[in-house]
Order: sequence, then structure tokens, then C-alpha cells
Amino acid sequence: MEGSGPSPTSLNNFRIVYLITQMVGATIIILIGSWVGVHLGGLSWSSNPAVQFNWHPLLMSFGMIFLYGNSILVYRGLRYARKKPLKVTHAVIHGLAFLFTVIALVAAFDSHNLAKTPIPNMYTLHSWVGMAAVVLFGCQYLFGFVSYLFPGVRESLRSTYMPIHVFFGIVGFILAIAASLLGLLEKAIFSIGDYRYLPPQGVLVNMIGMLLLVYGGLVVFLVTEPMYKRKPLPEDVMLLTHSPSSQ
Amino acid sequence: MEGSGPSPTSLNNFRIVYLITQMVGATIIILIGSWVGVHLGGLSWSSNPAVQFNWHPLLMSFGMIFLYGNSILVYRGLRYARKKPLKVTHAVIHGLAFLFTVIALVAAFDSHNLAKTPIPNMYTLHSWVGMAAVVLFGCQYLFGFVSYLFPGVRESLRSTYMPIHVFFGIVGFILAIAASLLGLLEKAIFSIGDYRYLPPQGVLVNMIGMLLLVYGGLVVFLVTEPMYKRKPLPEDVMLLTHSPSSQ
Repeated sequence: MEGSGPSPTSLNNFRIVYLITQMVGATIIILIGSWVGVHLGGLSWSSNPAVQFNWHPLLMSFGMIFLYGNSILVYRGLRYARKKPLKVTHAVIHGLAFLFTVIALVAAFDSHNLAKTPIPNMYTLHSWVGMAAVVLFGCQYLFGFVSYLFPGVRESLRSTYMPIHVFFGIVGFILAIAASLLGLLEKAIFSIGDYRYLPPQGVLVNMIGMLLLVYGGLVVFLVTEPMYKRKPLPEDVMLLTHSPSSQ
Repeated sequence: MEGSGPSPTSLNNFRIVYLITQMVGATIIILIGSWVGVHLGGLSWSSNPAVQFNWHPLLMSFGMIFLYGNSILVYRGLRYARKKPLKVTHAVIHGLAFLFTVIALVAAFDSHNLAKTPIPNMYTLHSWVGMAAVVLFGCQYLFGFVSYLFPGVRESLRSTYMPIHVFFGIVGFILAIAASLLGLLEKAIFSIGDYRYLPPQGVLVNMIGMLLLVYGGLVVFLVTEPMYKRKPLPEDVMLLTHSPSSQ
């Protein structure tokens, strides 16, 4: 039936792929935590700029990868929730992602500026791609907030912007994955002396990169596969048309 | 009218975006050629392993980026051509891309193995992501060839594999872009002594990376935007149903 919910079979597939995606995402965070803890000297904010830097990969991967992915999945993951709470959840998770991103950026800039011999900022391709991802993310947050959470914006404007918001949302997520890969590679080259002989740390960093590809592919699949698209609930339609609700 | 060609307006937009995409793609190849020629010592196959390496970025960007992008765009770029010649063109361009890729891989491995002090192969994240892209590309070529250019394959199998072929075709293209970014970054770190002060070569490499993002975004937009999807021609449908053609 057109307009009815997805069949149990397609939903079962969704749940399995969604579960695998979450497991891969969590594994990435755990592995980056291990890398930071075991190989990079742990976490500290103000004692040593080189150690302060370690917040950067941890918070970026948690904010711009794990939370970002979960935020764009929220409509399909919680498909039976009402539209309004989903929009608020989407905005709150993205807001947290942005907060972690800002702290992660401060950690990276501090680690350059406060070093005994200051290191220039924003010179590698990682920093250019990463900044493009953050700026795109910020613009999307601003335009999305104004378009969908401010009352009184015309419905025609909202629906015109929707495919643009979705497209650039996915573009920003892919940019964040690309920036993470670049960041892993440059940190590996800068800090693993014998990277060319693939010591355990080198294998760990490369494996995190490959898992990022898997996570990115799974998230993009889940948010673009038409079969998994959330269908409007009867309550959403009733709210939209302002007809009296029977419940 | 359902089933008729796209309106002139949407086609005009397609043509403009398609033209910009081609210009960005050509600019990338020209800039990589300039980088190789001006900063990396030009091209030569057997005189010096370090110079032989230079074929790698040039042929990879021509094969896995420019030709790959054009091959997946061929159905939409030449939308008024018949299906069969389009399929053959798609296979031929991808075949050329694969040929250049193989030569580019040989150049990279030779530059490691034939160096006075041999350099280990396949240790950086660039090499892992790049090899994943090439292997995925090879599998797609094989399965696509068998499914769509061998006569006698069941129509149901062809149509079941089509969304998978399209999805992993785009995934492979994005992987190739990611691998290129990683390759640019590692070559910049390895060979630009004062990369941190962003000399002209550093700016050039970073700009090539940013253009790769633009090219990748434009190609993925052009091949996924539903408005630009090629509609079957009357001739395609007639050939499919084996009804007598009036022309």
C-alpha cells in the first residue's frame, strides 16, 4: 500500500544495518581513544600543548563523525516518533556535534600556538578540507535552524530548501570523513617514526581509516536508500493541515 | 508529460553544471601536470625511480578521477544516444581508466622497489584507501561487464544488480577522490620541505585537493539528481520488447 509503513522485512534489514553501523561507529571512537591513550600520551588540557592536541582527534571523531552520522540518521532510526521531536533531536545532536567540534578546533590551534616553537596553522590539506567541512556544517546548521525550527517560515521555502539541505548535509558528512582520513595520515606521518615498517600504531591508524570508510558508506547508504525513507505519520499530516486531531 | 524528455530549462541547467564539471576536471589534470613538470622533475619511465613515480599522480588523476567521472556521467551527458552504444562507451572509458590505473600502480611500486634504498610498499593510509578503490573498481567492471554486456543474462538479474552497481560505482568514485586527497597530502609532507610555510608548491597541492572536492561534488550531484536522470528512448523500449521498429 502506498503511504503505509514499510514492510517488516525491509525494516528488519534496516535494523541490522543500523545496528552494524552503530557498532562500527562505536568501535572507531574506542580505537581512537586507545590510540590517544596508548600511543599519543593520553589527555590533558593545559599541561602540555602536544598532549592537549590529543583532544582534537577524539572530539572531532565523536562530534563530526559519530554524532553527525547519528543526527542525520535520526529520522530513519526513530521513524515512529513524531516529526517535531525528531527535528528537535536532529538539532540538539548537531548542536552537541558543533560544540565538540569547537573544543576540538581550540585544542588543535592551541597545540600549534602554545608550542615552544609555534607551528603555523592551517597549512596542510587536512586543515583546508576540515575547515571546509566545519564551515559547511555551520552554514547548514544556521539555514536549517532558521528554515525548520523558526515558526512562520513559508512552507514553499521549507520544501524548496529541503533537497539542498539533505544534499549538503551528506556532502558535509563525506567531507568530515575525508578530513578525518587526512588527519589520521598526517598524524601518522608526523608522529610514527617507523610508519613505513607498519608498527602496531601504524596498523591501528590505518585500520581506523578503513573503518571510517565503512562507517561513512553505511551511514550514506542508510540515509539515501529510498526503501528506508521515513513515511509521514498520520499525526504529522494532521498537524500540517491543522485539521482537528482525533487523539 | 510522464516519460517525455526533460524540459529545456532543466536541461539547460544540466548543460551548465556539466560544462563547469568538465572545466574543473580539466583544470585538475592541467594543475597536476604543472606540479609534476615544475616542482617534481617531470616525467620519465626508466631513468630514475623518483621521477618514474611522477606518472602515478598524473595517470591516477586522469584515469581514476577524470575518466571515471566522465564514464559514470555518460548516460546523462549523452542522453539522446541509444542505450547500447552508451553501455559500450561506458565500458570503453572505464577500460581506459583501468589501463591508466595499472600503469600508475606500476610506476608507484617501481619507484619504491627500484630506489637505491628500497621503500616498503602499501604502508600508508593512502595506499590502503587507494587499493580499496582500485579493487572495488575492478570488481564493478567485472560484474558490470558480465551482467550488462554479455548476451543472455536474465533481465531480472540485470535489474536487481543495477542499484547495487550504481551505488558501488559512486562509492568507488568517492573512494578514488579520498585516495587522491591522501596521496596529495602525503606527497606534500614527504617532498615539500617547507610545507608548513605554504610555499607556492604547497598552495598548488592544497588547491588541487580543494578542486578535487568540487569535481567530486559536481559529478555526484549530476549522477544522483533525479531531475537529470536519462529517460529511455522510444528506440530502447522497442528494442527491449522486440516489437517491429517503424524507423
